[in-house]
Amino acid sequence: MTRQQQQEQLRAYIEDGLSLPLYEELSQLHPADAAELIAGLTPAEIARYVELVGPKEALPVFEFVPFLVQKDSLEHLSRQTLAQLMSLMSPDDRADLVEELDDAFQERLLSLLLKSERQNVLKLINYPEDSAGAHMTTAYALLHPDSDVKSALEEVRLQAPTKETIYYIYVVDSSRQLLGLVSLRDLIMSPPRSRVRDIMKKQLISVSAEEDIEEVAKLSSRYDFLAVPVVDAAGRMVGIITFDDLYDVIAEEATEDMYHLANLDTDEKVSSPWQRSVKLRVPWLLGNLGTGLVAAYVVSLFAETIHQVVALASLMTIVALLGGNAGNQSLTVVVRALALGEIKLARNWPVLFKEVAVGLANGLIVGLVIGVISFLWYGNPWLGLIMWLALVGNLVIAGLFGAMVPIVLRKLKLDPALGSSIFVTTATDVGGFFIFLGLATLLLPRILAP
Amino acid sequence: MTRQQQQEQLRAYIEDGLSLPLYEELSQLHPADAAELIAGLTPAEIARYVELVGPKEALPVFEFVPFLVQKDSLEHLSRQTLAQLMSLMSPDDRADLVEELDDAFQERLLSLLLKSERQNVLKLINYPEDSAGAHMTTAYALLHPDSDVKSALEEVRLQAPTKETIYYIYVVDSSRQLLGLVSLRDLIMSPPRSRVRDIMKKQLISVSAEEDIEEVAKLSSRYDFLAVPVVDAAGRMVGIITFDDLYDVIAEEATEDMYHLANLDTDEKVSSPWQRSVKLRVPWLLGNLGTGLVAAYVVSLFAETIHQVVALASLMTIVALLGGNAGNQSLTVVVRALALGEIKLARNWPVLFKEVAVGLANGLIVGLVIGVISFLWYGNPWLGLIMWLALVGNLVIAGLFGAMVPIVLRKLKLDPALGSSIFVTTATDVGGFFIFLGLATLLLPRILAP
Repeated sequence: MTRQQQQEQLRAYIEDGLSLPLYEELSQLHPADAAELIAGLTPAEIARYVELVGPKEALPVFEFVPFLVQKDSLEHLSRQTLAQLMSLMSPDDRADLVEELDDAFQERLLSLLLKSERQNVLKLINYPEDSAGAHMTTAYALLHPDSDVKSALEEVRLQAPTKETIYYIYVVDSSRQLLGLVSLRDLIMSPPRSRVRDIMKKQLISVSAEEDIEEVAKLSSRYDFLAVPVVDAAGRMVGIITFDDLYDVIAEEATEDMYHLANLDTDEKVSSPWQRSVKLRVPWLLGNLGTGLVAAYVVSLFAETIHQVVALASLMTIVALLGGNAGNQSLTVVVRALALGEIKLARNWPVLFKEVAVGLANGLIVGLVIGVISFLWYGNPWLGLIMWLALVGNLVIAGLFGAMVPIVLRKLKLDPALGSSIFVTTATDVGGFFIFLGLATLLLPRILAP
Repeated sequence: MTRQQQQEQLRAYIEDGLSLPLYEELSQLHPADAAELIAGLTPAEIARYVELVGPKEALPVFEFVPFLVQKDSLEHLSRQTLAQLMSLMSPDDRADLVEELDDAFQERLLSLLLKSERQNVLKLINYPEDSAGAHMTTAYALLHPDSDVKSALEEVRLQAPTKETIYYIYVVDSSRQLLGLVSLRDLIMSPPRSRVRDIMKKQLISVSAEEDIEEVAKLSSRYDFLAVPVVDAAGRMVGIITFDDLYDVIAEEATEDMYHLANLDTDEKVSSPWQRSVKLRVPWLLGNLGTGLVAAYVVSLFAETIHQVVALASLMTIVALLGGNAGNQSLTVVVRALALGEIKLARNWPVLFKEVAVGLANGLIVGLVIGVISFLWYGNPWLGLIMWLALVGNLVIAGLFGAMVPIVLRKLKLDPALGSSIFVTTATDVGGFFIFLGLATLLLPRILAP
């Protein structure tokens, strides 16, 4: 059956109110796949599906439906189903969803929740977008340090149905101070009489709710954590961030850096309507136009030289192109290393020196090749020499700015990738044209009479 | 205590053969942090550390030590310790390590292993670098479908010490055919008398050992898998890939795309010696030189026009710069969408049309701004008009090639990011210069006498 046929089938079941075949059809699929089919229906149909199979059965699928579709279908649900569905949702997904709603509906929905649920939502939606708090779930399993292993296992069994994971269980005292971690593996392998206090890991890495989620991803990847506990300023446990959210975070952070290096807004997607893409890209292009105008102005200063040796107009494009290319190489290496935590703050200088050294060496090698080609092309050794020198100079500039710009942005607590390629291109374009045309002007008599 | 002091401390313990304080000092740290300290010692010192605390105690730390350091220290170990250490290592780490050794030492080491271990290593090192097989571990937990839950739990307890994870347990028949999956969560929550067969998930997603590891990461991220089972061509289970390896895979695949877009070799690291970086970058710069030469040649065709209107040499740099920038925007959006699986193969055309439409709109908007500036700068309306038209043309080229190049590379089963920016830059540089200087040549009389 094709996707379309499957969707038609679902639609027919929904129209006829056939809840059992509907449920059975979808339960054969992984919830993520079922959600993809469901997401193709209208919001009213999705709501009717939730009503038909019941919020509890629909939830695993509903959680995989994209946000915007979820949001639209909520408005078609009955008061009662809506309240049940929201109570059943995992706290982090529920908060993310509520945050998307317009004020009136948000108000109405919050009034349907229990007081504790409402407070939970309000707490979660107050964390800044890229913080650990905004990505955590409050549905984590807890144990008391004085339980023995046997009763702890019983306790975990009871907690399991409502918890995001029971593979890491956190040990807290009566004021929710985080004391340690017990994995379910440790728990089932320890003698039943042991105390949780004695088998728990005490040296525990936790993050504050304000911590940048990117740092949490770095920690998890370094230590192979399945989940990371989040604590408030007083060291009280407030949530956990689990591996599946980190898959997305790691991919998103990389997308963010790639987009910033390419002068793209991170709100853009391949599926954005073209009008939106235009709106998001034009400001960046206008920013680059600034670079272009400065470079064009530098060239215009040497109009007289170019008028006498038009070959310069042709050759200068190579100087700018390769400078931009080399600058982008240095920039990308340094931005990625900063993102992955491969450069410690104290060790910026070696990175800067290295990129300048690489620029110098590349300039000498590639510049020599270009110099010889230019000499052979125009039969003028002085043009060849100037090309060589300009390439050396511009590739040193490329290495210097390619490394320096992201490091300085980082020192200023800004995103090392954001806008950095505009700075670097300005440096290599302006620098390249200035060195090349400046040298040509100085050596003009030699070029004209080699 | 600073890091250096800690290292001196460790060194002193090792020299004096004080195994107990050495072990205690390190066991206070997370193995990843302990490994960072250990990795700063000489290979001989590391080997002596392993001998002193014993391979079993040293292993958790040793596994986090970087490959190259592990490798060097192995040669200093006694025969017996070496054999023990290798037996204890997890199968995937062991295979990765053996693969790095030179032939003679590899031979010697394999002869120390049990036959089954040796066969396991030889099997794992034969998978291609980016395949699921090369990333999987063979240390996974297994159950028989006819066990009841009580005995299954007992079985899991027995398997736990040697398995990478016991949170997903795979159900296989006597010929290792993969039948289903039971999570430890399901197991501890099910009645003790239930059969594994009845509680297991039967609709299971598995990958073949030859599958690209990038696809495995995509699957896990889509379905929130903690581990993915790997099967051979006959459907027999051969290994699993766990979440912690996928953290690294997701980050590495993103790095690979970023590097390819910036014309960098993926073997390069920020910590590579400068000579190596030069060696890896020069070929890419020479590749770009090809682009530069073609563009320069196009410019040289219009030498006579430039000679008459030198302002063209200045303005043409803006056309090329913005074309390159817009092309890079389209390229990055499409490459990232392909990598994240956001573009289905059948839906290439809408993406292409959209990027061309965005290019057209951006060209009309940004080109108008540049056109007006050029007009005001040089007081020549015809120069302004030509700039506008050239920008429109070049940004359409940018959108077209930026979307088409990665899509075509993908259709040819090549990496959509690899080398694509060279193609796109060639298109925008050559196209931009040709349109701009071509229009200027056609309208030369008008420009000279506006």
